Amino acid sequence: MTKPTVVVALGGNALLCRGEPLDADIQRKNVGTAAQAIAALIQDWNVVLVHGNGPQVGLLALQNAAYKEVKAYPLDILGAETQGMIGYLLMQELRNVLPETAVTTLLTQVEVDGGDPAFLNPTKYIGPVYDKAEADALSLEKGWEFKNDGKYIRRVVPSPQPLNIIESDSIKQLINHGNLVICTGGGGIPVVRKDNKLVGIEAVIDKDLSAAFLAKQINADALLILTDADAVYLNWGQEDQYALKNAQPEQLAQIEFDAGSMGPKISAACEFVNATQGRVGIGCLVDGAQILQGLKGTLITATPIEQDAAI
Amino acid sequence: MTKPTVVVALGGNALLCRGEPLDADIQRKNVGTAAQAIAALIQDWNVVLVHGNGPQVGLLALQNAAYKEVKAYPLDILGAETQGMIGYLLMQELRNVLPETAVTTLLTQVEVDGGDPAFLNPTKYIGPVYDKAEADALSLEKGWEFKNDGKYIRRVVPSPQPLNIIESDSIKQLINHGNLVICTGGGGIPVVRKDNKLVGIEAVIDKDLSAAFLAKQINADALLILTDADAVYLNWGQEDQYALKNAQPEQLAQIEFDAGSMGPKISAACEFVNATQGRVGIGCLVDGAQILQGLKGTLITATPIEQDAAI
Repeated sequence: MTKPTVVVALGGNALLCRGEPLDADIQRKNVGTAAQAIAALIQDWNVVLVHGNGPQVGLLALQNAAYKEVKAYPLDILGAETQGMIGYLLMQELRNVLPETAVTTLLTQVEVDGGDPAFLNPTKYIGPVYDKAEADALSLEKGWEFKNDGKYIRRVVPSPQPLNIIESDSIKQLINHGNLVICTGGGGIPVVRKDNKLVGIEAVIDKDLSAAFLAKQINADALLILTDADAVYLNWGQEDQYALKNAQPEQLAQIEFDAGSMGPKISAACEFVNATQGRVGIGCLVDGAQILQGLKGTLITATPIEQDAAI
Repeated sequence: MTKPTVVVALGGNALLCRGEPLDADIQRKNVGTAAQAIAALIQDWNVVLVHGNGPQVGLLALQNAAYKEVKAYPLDILGAETQGMIGYLLMQELRNVLPETAVTTLLTQVEVDGGDPAFLNPTKYIGPVYDKAEADALSLEKGWEFKNDGKYIRRVVPSPQPLNIIESDSIKQLINHGNLVICTGGGGIPVVRKDNKLVGIEAVIDKDLSAAFLAKQINADALLILTDADAVYLNWGQEDQYALKNAQPEQLAQIEFDAGSMGPKISAACEFVNATQGRVGIGCLVDGAQILQGLKGTLITATPIEQDAAI
C-alpha cells in the first residue's frame, strides 16, 4: 500500500539555536539530531522535508559584504547557496541514519508576485543578532533594514507569499519512487515572472508558508511544522497558559498569535487544512511522529478528531 | 521512442571567462548563452548537465576567510553551496529557453577514497588569479597551496578520483520522466565512507572525470565535454597543429596532452568509451549538438566512424 505523504517544515532552530555560532561543525551536529527525528517518520509516511535558512542566508550576505572585490550577490542567489549547503548536510545525515532510503535534494524556485506588499514592508529575520550600534552601522553602510527579534536586533528582508512551486512535478516523481525529498529550502528561491520568464528577486519566503503551499500543490496528506515550541499554546506567557491538543481552523482564526513566530505557522496550517481537509501537526522536533498521531503537540484538523485518537 | 542520454560536462569557462570578475550578473549573462547551446541538444537527447565550479568555490572560500566571525567552512560545504548557486542560475535560464521541459537540479555527493594520492598532491585550481606577492601572503596566512596556471598563479586543492555517484538512482528516475537534470555540479560534493557513514572531505573533484563516471554509472549513451577549445588538437601551439575529427582511445593513449586541461578530459573520455562503447564529443559550447554528430569538434569512438558521418 502506498504510504501517505507528509511535508515537514523544519525550523531554522533545528539546525542552529538562537545565538549559537554559525560554525559548520555546530550545524552538522544539530542536523544529526534532526535527521534522527525525521527518520522516525518514514515508517508510516513519505517524507518531504522543507528547511529554514534565516541564519545561514544572513551569514552568506555578511561574507559577501566582507569580501569587497566582487559585487555582493542578490538574495535569490544566496538563498540557492543555502539550499546547497543545508540540503547537503541534511541529505548526508539522513542517508547515514536511513541507509535503505534514497534521499534526494532538489533546488526549488518559488514564484512570488513582484507587486506583493511584502516588498514595501520587510518582516523576515535573517542573519545573526546585533546590538543597536552594530545594526545602526550596517544600516548606514549597506542600506539594510533592522527590527527587534525578541531581545535581539536582526536584519529584516521582504517575505512575499508563495504562489507556485516551480519544480513540484519533479518532487512528485521522486516521492512516487520512494525518495525522501529535501526541497524548497529556505522557503524556496524567490522568483517572479517577467515577460513569461523567471527571474530572481531579493526576498526570503517564509518556509512554513512555502511548506504549506507545497503540501497543497503536491496533494500531500499532512503537514508537520517542527519548531521550538512543543505545541500551540493559548494564553501564552500567562499563568493559565495551556497547550491545544486538537483545534479546527475556525477556532484558531479567532485567536491572535505572535505575528513573528506562531502566527504565520497557524495561518499556513489553517490554509492547508481548509484547502485539503488534511491534517497539520505543530510541535517540537523530537515529538515528530507522535504529533501526527495526536499524541503530542497540536493537531489541526477540519473536524475534531476522536477522543481515542487525540490522546 | 526513448531518446538516448548524453551527459554534458560544461566547463567553468562557459560561466566565466578566465580573468572576468565573479559578479553575479556576469555569470547570469554567460549562463544564458550556455543555456541556449544546451537547449539545442534536447531535440535528440536526454540531457544530464554537469558544471564546473573552480572560480566560484574559490570565491566562497575567500568570502569565508574575509568574514572572520565564523570559522571558515570546509570545501565539501562550499562545493554544496556552488551546486546551489550555479545549479540555480543554469536551471532558471534553461527553463526560460525550454518552457516545455522540466529542468531539475539535484545536489550530488561523490564518493572518493580518503587514501587517494591526490590528497598528498593538490592539483585542482580554484578561485581567482593572483600575482606572486598575493599568493605568498595567502599561503603564509591560511596555509593554502598555490601553483602556476598558465601565466597566472592560483590556489590548488586535492582532486581525488570519483568512485561512486551517491544519488545516481534519483538522477536516472528523473531522466526517465523526461527531466533535463543538472547534477554533480563542481564534480560533486566530495565524501568518503567512514564506518559505513558518508562524511565530507576537503577536495574538489574534476568535473570531467565525475561527468564520465556518472555517464558510466547511469548507462548514458554519450558524453559531451564542452570547453574553450573547439576540438582536440595534435601538435598544439605548433605551426602544423591540426584538429582531430575522430579518434580511438588506443590512438590517444600514445599522445601526451596538457596535464592541466586537455589531459584529464582525454583520460575521462577514453575511460568512458572503453567501458561502454559509447561516444564522447569534445569541443566548444556553441558547436554542442554538432559535435556528437561528428560535424564539429572531436569525436572519440571505440571504432572509426564512417567517413560520411565524420564530415
